[in-house]
Amino acid sequence: MAEPVLIVGSIALDSVETPFGQEVEVLGGAATYASIAASFLAPVRVVGVVGQDFPQGYLDLLASKGIDLEGVRAEPGRTFRWVGRYDYDLNVAHTINTELNVFEHFRPEIPEGYRTTPYLFLANIDPTLQLRVLDQVNKPALTASDTMNFWINGKRDQVIEVLRRSDVSLLNDAEVRMLTGTANLVTAARQVLDLGPSCTVIKKGEHGAVMCTNTSYFAAPGYPLEVVKDPTGAGDAFAGGLIGYLAYTGDASDGNLRKAIVYGSVLASFTVEDFSIRRLERLTHDEIAERYQRFHEIASFEA
Amino acid sequence: MAEPVLIVGSIALDSVETPFGQEVEVLGGAATYASIAASFLAPVRVVGVVGQDFPQGYLDLLASKGIDLEGVRAEPGRTFRWVGRYDYDLNVAHTINTELNVFEHFRPEIPEGYRTTPYLFLANIDPTLQLRVLDQVNKPALTASDTMNFWINGKRDQVIEVLRRSDVSLLNDAEVRMLTGTANLVTAARQVLDLGPSCTVIKKGEHGAVMCTNTSYFAAPGYPLEVVKDPTGAGDAFAGGLIGYLAYTGDASDGNLRKAIVYGSVLASFTVEDFSIRRLERLTHDEIAERYQRFHEIASFEA
Repeated sequence: MAEPVLIVGSIALDSVETPFGQEVEVLGGAATYASIAASFLAPVRVVGVVGQDFPQGYLDLLASKGIDLEGVRAEPGRTFRWVGRYDYDLNVAHTINTELNVFEHFRPEIPEGYRTTPYLFLANIDPTLQLRVLDQVNKPALTASDTMNFWINGKRDQVIEVLRRSDVSLLNDAEVRMLTGTANLVTAARQVLDLGPSCTVIKKGEHGAVMCTNTSYFAAPGYPLEVVKDPTGAGDAFAGGLIGYLAYTGDASDGNLRKAIVYGSVLASFTVEDFSIRRLERLTHDEIAERYQRFHEIASFEA
Repeated sequence: MAEPVLIVGSIALDSVETPFGQEVEVLGGAATYASIAASFLAPVRVVGVVGQDFPQGYLDLLASKGIDLEGVRAEPGRTFRWVGRYDYDLNVAHTINTELNVFEHFRPEIPEGYRTTPYLFLANIDPTLQLRVLDQVNKPALTASDTMNFWINGKRDQVIEVLRRSDVSLLNDAEVRMLTGTANLVTAARQVLDLGPSCTVIKKGEHGAVMCTNTSYFAAPGYPLEVVKDPTGAGDAFAGGLIGYLAYTGDASDGNLRKAIVYGSVLASFTVEDFSIRRLERLTHDEIAERYQRFHEIASFEA
């Protein structure tokens, strides 16, 4: 029986332009992507904030995935908006504009019924708020956390405190290098382990992901997609797939962490096939299982 | 019984500076790295040119690895020299100086006894010379070829003709993008297949390597090295390990190509652990077998 997952982070309206198209004020946000991805594997509870202008249709969409929205508050004002662009190097997001709106005064309040949730994912938000969440919950069986360059630069001590209280650290290659001041990714990953987490996962976009623990190193391949329409949310869907699988199985052994990373990669690979959460919206369990097997074929060779 | 491999390319004296040290006029060259790497797996024959100043000790070193040097001519003049630097981004070589010397008038002559060699690796040289080699040999069982940005820009037609006559194309990610004008690596790899080879291998440095055929896609991980002293020759050692393993087994099935790519990755991963060919010089078969198993552990997850 899958255990529930609590996800705390942003819910946004994104306007995105890529070489393959353009979308205005579509559903986005780290908590959104992570929640939908995790919902294929485990019951999901979200804590976030939206404005009064947030389309009911989007809330209905999340609810239709079985996502518990008790922790999503609608506040007076406009929803958080992000405007960004990707050029042909789809690994790099160019932010054109960020309107925090109701997100500016977001102070996560964890509903009573969520406080003993055994799996927690702290998506990328101000680490002060991530710590506020950690202070409100009973110590989860497993806590995974993400962050970004902005907080690593501006609130380094708090980022490190979040890591100290996390079991799984999720960072991309640029972030882990910035956090540790170390160019070599393996050394950098080990330095993150020294900060507290028992597992460091480095997301490398088209090059896949690697995991480093004190006793193991695992590399998951990137999926050979020929068309990437919109990379927004890939890292968040990765995290959602990862923690969703861990919650589904209740098993954080090395072998199962590896499988969780591949499930994360599967969810991320679907996410980028269309704008916003559209591909996730129509994704099926069979497609997930099939792509997991494809990942296995891609990485397989005889011992 | 391993079949022999013929390797045609440069033999050089390299002066290299990296953040981890500096070496002056040490043994280098694509044919050198590829030959030593392949020599662990199959008998190797080399065709190349050196100057009269080329140290006898280096020839003795190659001979001590069982490498047949009948095809290496000593010409009047100085040996080919390359001077380069790597900064902390060890994926990018900065050429400070190239002295072609005897290499300027290199016209590969394949000795009579080499012309029926079943495995051929055309290391990176002027594609006109690669074609000259292909004209002198009986069609090998398997031909692998490499090139570089300089020839893709300057002698594109000849590069394409070499690919038409190759079975395995070896390129790095920047080269395959330049050759095809396509940013997406999977699409680019497929476009290379359309030019002739039945197998495209893309070398991605620290991110590993991928292989694409008309029916299969394989991703080999990068090896988690914490110290990379000198990346020079990694791609050539990769090619040597790959073709050496194919010659050793006489089997170019999909499963065996995958193993060959991992053997190539193993040889490349050792190469960068020290300057010049030093790590390869003292490498043992046991170390190769052990690292192959490490690669397998790194990439493994349950289906």
